[in-house]
Amino acid sequence: MSTLLWQKEGVRVDERIQRFLAGNDIGDDRALFAYDLRASLAHAEGLANIGILRADEMAALRKELDALAQEWAAGSFVLDDRYEDGHSAIEARLVERLGDTGRRIHTGRSRNDQVLVATRLYLRDALATLHSQCKLIAAVALGRADADGALPLPGYTHLQRAVVSSAAMWWAAWAEAYIDDAQLAADTGRWVDANPLGSAAGYGVNLALDRAHTTQALGFSRQQVAATYAQLSRGKFELQALSALSQALLDLRRLAWDLSLYASAEFGFIALPAEYTTGSSLMPNKRNPDLVELLRASHAVVAGARVEIEQLLSLPSGYHRDLQFSKAPLLRAFSHGLDALALVPDLLERMQWRPEAMRAAVEPGMFATDRAIELAAGGVPFRDAYVLAAKDPLPSHGVDADASLAVRVSPGSGSNLELGVLRARLDGL
Amino acid sequence: MSTLLWQKEGVRVDERIQRFLAGNDIGDDRALFAYDLRASLAHAEGLANIGILRADEMAALRKELDALAQEWAAGSFVLDDRYEDGHSAIEARLVERLGDTGRRIHTGRSRNDQVLVATRLYLRDALATLHSQCKLIAAVALGRADADGALPLPGYTHLQRAVVSSAAMWWAAWAEAYIDDAQLAADTGRWVDANPLGSAAGYGVNLALDRAHTTQALGFSRQQVAATYAQLSRGKFELQALSALSQALLDLRRLAWDLSLYASAEFGFIALPAEYTTGSSLMPNKRNPDLVELLRASHAVVAGARVEIEQLLSLPSGYHRDLQFSKAPLLRAFSHGLDALALVPDLLERMQWRPEAMRAAVEPGMFATDRAIELAAGGVPFRDAYVLAAKDPLPSHGVDADASLAVRVSPGSGSNLELGVLRARLDGL
Amino acid sequence: MSTLLWQKEGVRVDERIQRFLAGNDIGDDRALFAYDLRASLAHAEGLANIGILRADEMAALRKELDALAQEWAAGSFVLDDRYEDGHSAIEARLVERLGDTGRRIHTGRSRNDQVLVATRLYLRDALATLHSQCKLIAAVALGRADADGALPLPGYTHLQRAVVSSAAMWWAAWAEAYIDDAQLAADTGRWVDANPLGSAAGYGVNLALDRAHTTQALGFSRQQVAATYAQLSRGKFELQALSALSQALLDLRRLAWDLSLYASAEFGFIALPAEYTTGSSLMPNKRNPDLVELLRASHAVVAGARVEIEQLLSLPSGYHRDLQFSKAPLLRAFSHGLDALALVPDLLERMQWRPEAMRAAVEPGMFATDRAIELAAGGVPFRDAYVLAAKDPLPSHGVDADASLAVRVSPGSGSNLELGVLRARLDGL
Amino acid sequence: MSTLLWQKEGVRVDERIQRFLAGNDIGDDRALFAYDLRASLAHAEGLANIGILRADEMAALRKELDALAQEWAAGSFVLDDRYEDGHSAIEARLVERLGDTGRRIHTGRSRNDQVLVATRLYLRDALATLHSQCKLIAAVALGRADADGALPLPGYTHLQRAVVSSAAMWWAAWAEAYIDDAQLAADTGRWVDANPLGSAAGYGVNLALDRAHTTQALGFSRQQVAATYAQLSRGKFELQALSALSQALLDLRRLAWDLSLYASAEFGFIALPAEYTTGSSLMPNKRNPDLVELLRASHAVVAGARVEIEQLLSLPSGYHRDLQFSKAPLLRAFSHGLDALALVPDLLERMQWRPEAMRAAVEPGMFATDRAIELAAGGVPFRDAYVLAAKDPLPSHGVDADASLAVRVSPGSGSNLELGVLRARLDGL
Repeated sequence: MSTLLWQKEGVRVDERIQRFLAGNDIGDDRALFAYDLRASLAHAEGLANIGILRADEMAALRKELDALAQEWAAGSFVLDDRYEDGHSAIEARLVERLGDTGRRIHTGRSRNDQVLVATRLYLRDALATLHSQCKLIAAVALGRADADGALPLPGYTHLQRAVVSSAAMWWAAWAEAYIDDAQLAADTGRWVDANPLGSAAGYGVNLALDRAHTTQALGFSRQQVAATYAQLSRGKFELQALSALSQALLDLRRLAWDLSLYASAEFGFIALPAEYTTGSSLMPNKRNPDLVELLRASHAVVAGARVEIEQLLSLPSGYHRDLQFSKAPLLRAFSHGLDALALVPDLLERMQWRPEAMRAAVEPGMFATDRAIELAAGGVPFRDAYVLAAKDPLPSHGVDADASLAVRVSPGSGSNLELGVLRARLDGL
Repeated sequence: MSTLLWQKEGVRVDERIQRFLAGNDIGDDRALFAYDLRASLAHAEGLANIGILRADEMAALRKELDALAQEWAAGSFVLDDRYEDGHSAIEARLVERLGDTGRRIHTGRSRNDQVLVATRLYLRDALATLHSQCKLIAAVALGRADADGALPLPGYTHLQRAVVSSAAMWWAAWAEAYIDDAQLAADTGRWVDANPLGSAAGYGVNLALDRAHTTQALGFSRQQVAATYAQLSRGKFELQALSALSQALLDLRRLAWDLSLYASAEFGFIALPAEYTTGSSLMPNKRNPDLVELLRASHAVVAGARVEIEQLLSLPSGYHRDLQFSKAPLLRAFSHGLDALALVPDLLERMQWRPEAMRAAVEPGMFATDRAIELAAGGVPFRDAYVLAAKDPLPSHGVDADASLAVRVSPGSGSNLELGVLRARLDGL
Repeated sequence: MSTLLWQKEGVRVDERIQRFLAGNDIGDDRALFAYDLRASLAHAEGLANIGILRADEMAALRKELDALAQEWAAGSFVLDDRYEDGHSAIEARLVERLGDTGRRIHTGRSRNDQVLVATRLYLRDALATLHSQCKLIAAVALGRADADGALPLPGYTHLQRAVVSSAAMWWAAWAEAYIDDAQLAADTGRWVDANPLGSAAGYGVNLALDRAHTTQALGFSRQQVAATYAQLSRGKFELQALSALSQALLDLRRLAWDLSLYASAEFGFIALPAEYTTGSSLMPNKRNPDLVELLRASHAVVAGARVEIEQLLSLPSGYHRDLQFSKAPLLRAFSHGLDALALVPDLLERMQWRPEAMRAAVEPGMFATDRAIELAAGGVPFRDAYVLAAKDPLPSHGVDADASLAVRVSPGSGSNLELGVLRARLDGL
Repeated sequence: MSTLLWQKEGVRVDERIQRFLAGNDIGDDRALFAYDLRASLAHAEGLANIGILRADEMAALRKELDALAQEWAAGSFVLDDRYEDGHSAIEARLVERLGDTGRRIHTGRSRNDQVLVATRLYLRDALATLHSQCKLIAAVALGRADADGALPLPGYTHLQRAVVSSAAMWWAAWAEAYIDDAQLAADTGRWVDANPLGSAAGYGVNLALDRAHTTQALGFSRQQVAATYAQLSRGKFELQALSALSQALLDLRRLAWDLSLYASAEFGFIALPAEYTTGSSLMPNKRNPDLVELLRASHAVVAGARVEIEQLLSLPSGYHRDLQFSKAPLLRAFSHGLDALALVPDLLERMQWRPEAMRAAVEPGMFATDRAIELAAGGVPFRDAYVLAAKDPLPSHGVDADASLAVRVSPGSGSNLELGVLRARLDGL
């Protein structure tokens, strides 16, 4: 066999392997560390309940876990490269302080168990945050639908001016979108709310673990009953959580598209708050909507993360190290996605319409549909109604956009009636 | 300007454009035609309720729509290239039979309205089918968990033999997976169960449409209140339905992986029913698990469809023709995915274990974890327990897989107790 | 075991399985049939060369294969559900006409061999078509860059008016984009131009097949040497071909975005040829750019297809039936993608600028960058130059867009010089 | 308007926006910093060539840029949160040391210009590394094909034992795979090897920039001629580079699948080097192939990155801030992917076969194909040959795997002849 470059390097090969195996686990585990501590305590309590840990051992473990949680929250405990990952850090600390008692907390649980339960707790919290963020966006949109009312806005199809719409209709659409997204976040939160702790390496253990206790202590609404399924749900639950997040960001992508167009010189329908644009030292009148563009781009991060995880899950049952790679994209997508959504309520609240430009964009042809329906509703034969409207597009109210909107106060038009329905749904979430 | 090749072709350019615009709409619309008819009837009733259609007009429309629905169901009406799409076919028929009355059914609704509501009804049915298919798979798996019980099966991690598992644990995992999938299908069905009909081109109409009637007549549990949101939900709801389908097929991918490995000569744990394999004229003993492989591959169809739709949805609000391309991947994915899932119950029901191979694969080392836990639970210092177990891996019951499984009748082990929990959840779906 | 619904259905279960196994193979194989015939002839010749087929057998096979190819080209032979797939159709025909000689053509080749070589020939042709389509688009764009010259067009960043650009700069960008795409299609065509025929089931055969002959007869530039690699390249080569196609359609997506915006009332920079828009019976002035929107959406089809295939390729080496599912997305994507690209040259050739709207959109502030550079180049301290330009944005040529463009005839500005470089590259492709 | 939570927070809103805008730019720019410095120097030289910078200014800039490059390489200059991004860091340094001269380097170039050219230089280097890594893997595989020769290995189809293969055939497959991948990396490197510097904000500048100089100084083989195309190529070139990387990792995914299966107790064909596995404190005989699994999973990172970028590129022409998000996935994918590939040569070099297990897995039925071909080649009617072989599968050489492989020394079988062809191709890369 030929002598190759790396053969000279001896030890370095090993380092490369170790570094590759570790990846960015330590960095990622910062997002999970508090959950790991909580779940460790619950597991210890369960062991105490079935007599594996003595009362004094339990008390000692509780004290140390509580202390570590406090140090972590206060920033005085730092998770860094001294540890392989978050789990090792907890173990190292407990053993350092408690010796063999520190090790006994691992009785009947595996590293996979720990990752699963910490990630599950993270997912639950992330979805709860998503839920409240979507509700907040919907609330702002509803508030502005009320406030901005029947201010005329061109209704586009194919990006061509089609019929008269209004600021209220536009706001109501986003309100309903984010009500649905909030609902989805809540549904998904319930769907993943199952306790995997106690499944060990995926095949149970020869101990009557008190899973009822850990389920209750960690606030789960149900257990994952089949140990082997707990492993199978890794990645699966992450994907569904990302699907919920993705919907909120897909809506944001479309909302940001509207804002980007409306803020252009050509449309000119809105002015963005100054903090949300970046200026140009050269062109004082130019305000670039950088933030709106990054909000639009944010869905891509989640879409990429979904594919990254989905590609991993072509595996037989049982744990495979491949699954470790589901952690980074999950955390990256939620961290980025929730940061993006957090900026939206204020942006929407403070965005300003430019009524004169909006009214100027309402052309006579945009009343033709109203006219045709008016005629047809009045008994004119359908085909004739459309021929007449094409020739003379003005309905009885003429080219009065406000009158047109008033006439169209009907279901689906974003009138006060429907805003009430939306508000009731939002309040019920 | 230079003379180019196609300029000679004159009329053919137009044909190419028309063909490109039409795509495979007619083929796709076959899946939606019955829904379009139902929604057309509900819309007509709504128009009659608000006085746009006279009673005699309504009666005539109802008669023709019913007749067409019956002909369609019976196969005597064929949707083919004579029509641009399904909507045109309905219109052509109604106008042919009823003249201007046939046209009046379109008062206050747009083509987009029609596509939206027909697709929504399709989604609801497709998710209901997915729900029942997942329940059926879960039922078969639970039945076999009961029947096959504590038959030992190696429990793998990293595809390495790790600890003793059982047929029941394996079956219980798939049962719980498909219970979750059934739950998700139901949740998603509820989430999309909103009536878009009445939103016209996305900006409402100047008619007080009876949306409460169409909502009730079509069995929707709520309206999409904001007309502009109805358009925004196109693609969005499709994606979420595909996400639910995707989960069932991701689980199938992993299940099929197990079957593919277990059916190999090297593992040899199962025999597949003969119909699910294809033979070789040359090697009588070779049975290729083609069907299992195609089931494994089926998730890819859904994953592709999701991306196809997701890529479209980078658009401002309002209708854009891009959205037409959301139809084909949706229909393709559900048609394929539900066909795949429909084959699973019988396959699982009739798959046979090869107990001797399973027992032969249980090696002494696989008892070491049990031994260590036994020692640690008995008070041996943790580290000593593991050192002892590594040296002598045999727990008190020795290398008796059945005894090992019996001892491990604890939460998470797939015991009778947990099967009851799963059965109760399944029954409650 | 419980009695389940489908057990009553007996034979029908088998039919479902057979239907699932077949999928739409027959439909898909229509795109590959001519290639399969060509490759079958080459294989037969190779067998004759090594003495496996006698001269009279070879003559008979050649006669029948030629006849079938002619019937296929003429439309008198139809590939339909009488056959399992295209390969079976060829075999059935040869055996019907030639008996055992018809069967002998399969000596030393497998079904997988046939699929591989037919798909490879298809890929090569599809990439050649892509190459020439991209060249044609580039040629039209270059021609229009010449013809439309320095017509001013606002240059946008962040969709905000930034500096003066020109029609020529815009056209030159698309010309260079499609020159790169043509280059990529050619590179990719060379990369996949390897003969897989002769690899049998992936492990070679005990015959000295004349692979040099089939390679030469089918016009391949090299063999796939390792039999096992021929199988590994299935899907792999398809993905790379789709990546090349994807680039041409990503550029089309961005081009269509420009056209969609420019055709809006707000921008108003272009008029699309009437055939490329669809009218509205109600609003005579409204021309919806449906086709442009479908061109924009076309990339999604290719993106979906890539993912569909990529998801399949998580497999050990060797043939697996999963790979069959790589066929449909490949054919769908190329069929759709090439249809879309075929419409582009005529659309671009006949699109018309609206110079008055373009000139009207050039605002004084858009000259500020030119002014600052003018000052800085003249020795004014950098910071002062920018402060001065922000106050008074007018360069020496004032608010004269044409003069601004003339001054900017420099590398990168789309001047005649660079068009010559692009033309030379295009001619060399 | 209602009072909302964040309104109390005042200034903090701004910080959140700034943080969101910055993202992880500083971290990402570390990978690009050296390239930015090189390109800055080339740009300055170009400005000097056309008289914008005086000789003394040029000398001062060169001195500072060289000094900064050395400090960066030595680690004494740190890129951290003091700077917005890498570009700002360079500017800050130059202005600090040189005042207005430091600013003058920006004459005629934009921030986008800088990102584009630095990323392009990075891409070129990354593809060169990919090229050499693929060559190295191919070289190791070829070396082992020579060394391990005709050691019998079951050839699988559908994961069922089919015919006799050999270690050499298996190695040759991977060699040819990575030769193709190396070729693709080289082709792609040439395709992206175009200089974008000089395109300013995408519309050129009113200066006759010396683009020929920067092209030559930075070693590009061509310019991007059209300024507007330089912006359009952002993301586009990244995607193609990722496609090349993806192919190398897709092959690695399949290679790792083989290794994972072969290392299982059930197959037992290989022993992995100890450093590439992780042990279990409990089961001394268990060696988990963690690294092989992470190599298998690595393709997912690239697949996710591709989608992330692809999702961004639904935009009109011109720069949009969305494009900033193409940086992180590109760097993440190449960093991870190249790290993964770097581990492969040593792994393959030191992996050991277990000949006895390989030979034991060769069953009599696996000779049936050889037998049938032997009979058919000898003139036995085709159908009879197959019937005979099915009954008695033994060819003339009996159940001697080595003899079988010897007989199959034919094109495609991985014989010495073909290894020569592969070696010649590899040497020519």
